[in-house]
Amino acid sequence: MAEMNRAWVLVQRPVGDDFDSALKLQTLPMPELGEDQVLVRTLYLSLDPANRGWMAGPTYMPAVPVGVPMWGGVLGKVVKSNSPKFQPGDIIGGFGSWSDYCALPAGGVNKIPDMGGLPLAAAQGLFGGAGGTAYVGVIDIGQVKPGQIFVVSGAAGSVGSLAGQIAKIQGAKVVGIAGSAEKCAWLTNELGFDHAIDYQHENVRKRLAELCPDGVDVYFENVGGAVGNAVVANLAKGARVALCGLVSQYNADDGPAAGLDMLPILLKSCTVQGFILLDYLHRLGEASAKLGQWLAEGKVKYHADVTDGLENALEAFKTLFQSGASHKGKMMVRVDPSAN
Amino acid sequence: MAEMNRAWVLVQRPVGDDFDSALKLQTLPMPELGEDQVLVRTLYLSLDPANRGWMAGPTYMPAVPVGVPMWGGVLGKVVKSNSPKFQPGDIIGGFGSWSDYCALPAGGVNKIPDMGGLPLAAAQGLFGGAGGTAYVGVIDIGQVKPGQIFVVSGAAGSVGSLAGQIAKIQGAKVVGIAGSAEKCAWLTNELGFDHAIDYQHENVRKRLAELCPDGVDVYFENVGGAVGNAVVANLAKGARVALCGLVSQYNADDGPAAGLDMLPILLKSCTVQGFILLDYLHRLGEASAKLGQWLAEGKVKYHADVTDGLENALEAFKTLFQSGASHKGKMMVRVDPSAN
Repeated sequence: MAEMNRAWVLVQRPVGDDFDSALKLQTLPMPELGEDQVLVRTLYLSLDPANRGWMAGPTYMPAVPVGVPMWGGVLGKVVKSNSPKFQPGDIIGGFGSWSDYCALPAGGVNKIPDMGGLPLAAAQGLFGGAGGTAYVGVIDIGQVKPGQIFVVSGAAGSVGSLAGQIAKIQGAKVVGIAGSAEKCAWLTNELGFDHAIDYQHENVRKRLAELCPDGVDVYFENVGGAVGNAVVANLAKGARVALCGLVSQYNADDGPAAGLDMLPILLKSCTVQGFILLDYLHRLGEASAKLGQWLAEGKVKYHADVTDGLENALEAFKTLFQSGASHKGKMMVRVDPSAN
Repeated sequence: MAEMNRAWVLVQRPVGDDFDSALKLQTLPMPELGEDQVLVRTLYLSLDPANRGWMAGPTYMPAVPVGVPMWGGVLGKVVKSNSPKFQPGDIIGGFGSWSDYCALPAGGVNKIPDMGGLPLAAAQGLFGGAGGTAYVGVIDIGQVKPGQIFVVSGAAGSVGSLAGQIAKIQGAKVVGIAGSAEKCAWLTNELGFDHAIDYQHENVRKRLAELCPDGVDVYFENVGGAVGNAVVANLAKGARVALCGLVSQYNADDGPAAGLDMLPILLKSCTVQGFILLDYLHRLGEASAKLGQWLAEGKVKYHADVTDGLENALEAFKTLFQSGASHKGKMMVRVDPSAN
């Protein structure tokens, strides 16, 4: 096999938001294929805020070792198989790496079913991590009820944009918080959010008080920091906070990040619950079924933000942490130019 | 009635910890007794960290108006009654004020049953707010299980000292955090805590990591701030935080207080739940029955920290917010020198 295997190697742990020093694009030998493994040509690489945590140290899983290709969710095509479960040509999803090719254990990848005309890129978010996370966060953790006020931060992101739509389908009034007027217009005009707040140009705390004078019943937290505290200051009695992400804090290496103000949580008898999709894998079947149904009914819209070329993965990744960057929906890199 | 009615009047809202400017001892006319009211001679006044919040502004109830005697929990003796439900001489508990006498609605006070030889002072904490708060926080909110690691901050306080003992009775391993070596010795030697950490002289985060290498399962939070974050850094997967108080933050008027670090809550899938006893009044019956039984069996020890004289209430109150102050257990003022 004469193809190059380019890979973004984690050469040191990131300091603050200096990802340029942490990740280097290198040309590596093609992976050796072990027993019960499949050699996968990466079609799409998923870029997610959580990747930063995996680089930095142990989280809910061990840290990515320094010196190996960075880990990431991938969609790929099997080019060689040492497992009876997979044939060359199978399209799979799994936990791979930021590389042209990777060798993955057959037990750790899943065949992607026929998407019925939907671009393959949609599979990664809607029927993968982002869709499952949004579904569990709204239904299991947030437990939103019809008529309630539902607020989501990071609302234009892959998880946030789905969370708001799912809450809307449950009958909630939905307010999204995002980092630009363009994103806000997308949320209200395209996705059906009731309101959107541009945290770069509006006072989130005051605007929420105007929009939700009786308080916020469910807050889907993706960002933390000042935005998180602005929402917490507006919580209703007995509100629930589904703690899904803290993207504003992942790069804060200089001492402790600003925490969440607990006084409103105490005085309003609220609950904050952190969750990780890994603990809810048994819910993915229901999530995928519902999301597929809503997609077919036109109740859920889906946006994939695709960057072409593995060599551009680093620049795309960095925008995940830039306030006001223009990306919307699920961020992905098309590694194989021929992927649909 | 020739007696003086002295009262601590809230003359302005407190700024920071300047309670001297906020509360003034004044001599007022005896209260006029309205329909269905009882005139109560205060025997004991309860001093609690939450009082500070009531002075400062609206909380879970309206703020104490400026210009009236400061509100507080009292035990008192009925001296005159405009209600058929009460006779002069009845001993009652209720929501009164920092004063020698107060006129209270008959519907808002409760007769204190015979204490079976226990000093009356015990009624206020064990069978009142402190006992109920500790019971609900450990059983309903913390949901501690046998063999779990239970940590409580403000452990030498009225609520904390009972919470630790209740958790111990549930079969947990109990670690208390308090502000002096003397308090820590009291927790382990007298109350049966497994360990105690003196946050003034020990590194709470490191000490907890040594004592609980597998992490803290339930954290009963009374203080917030640096101590709260030190415990949160040691939480086990799926841990529960019963958010009862934030005494380190009540006097922080200079900008937002340090919040609780949410990253461990997210990565360990923990739950933080604020609670207010007012929402759990239906649980007070069970709490009192259990606490009474445990007291009789010698499984719960109770300490009342009694200051003599209404004129000394302000100085005693201030020590509630002083790190390393010597008080332990429920703080009360004996307003009537003849009270037992």
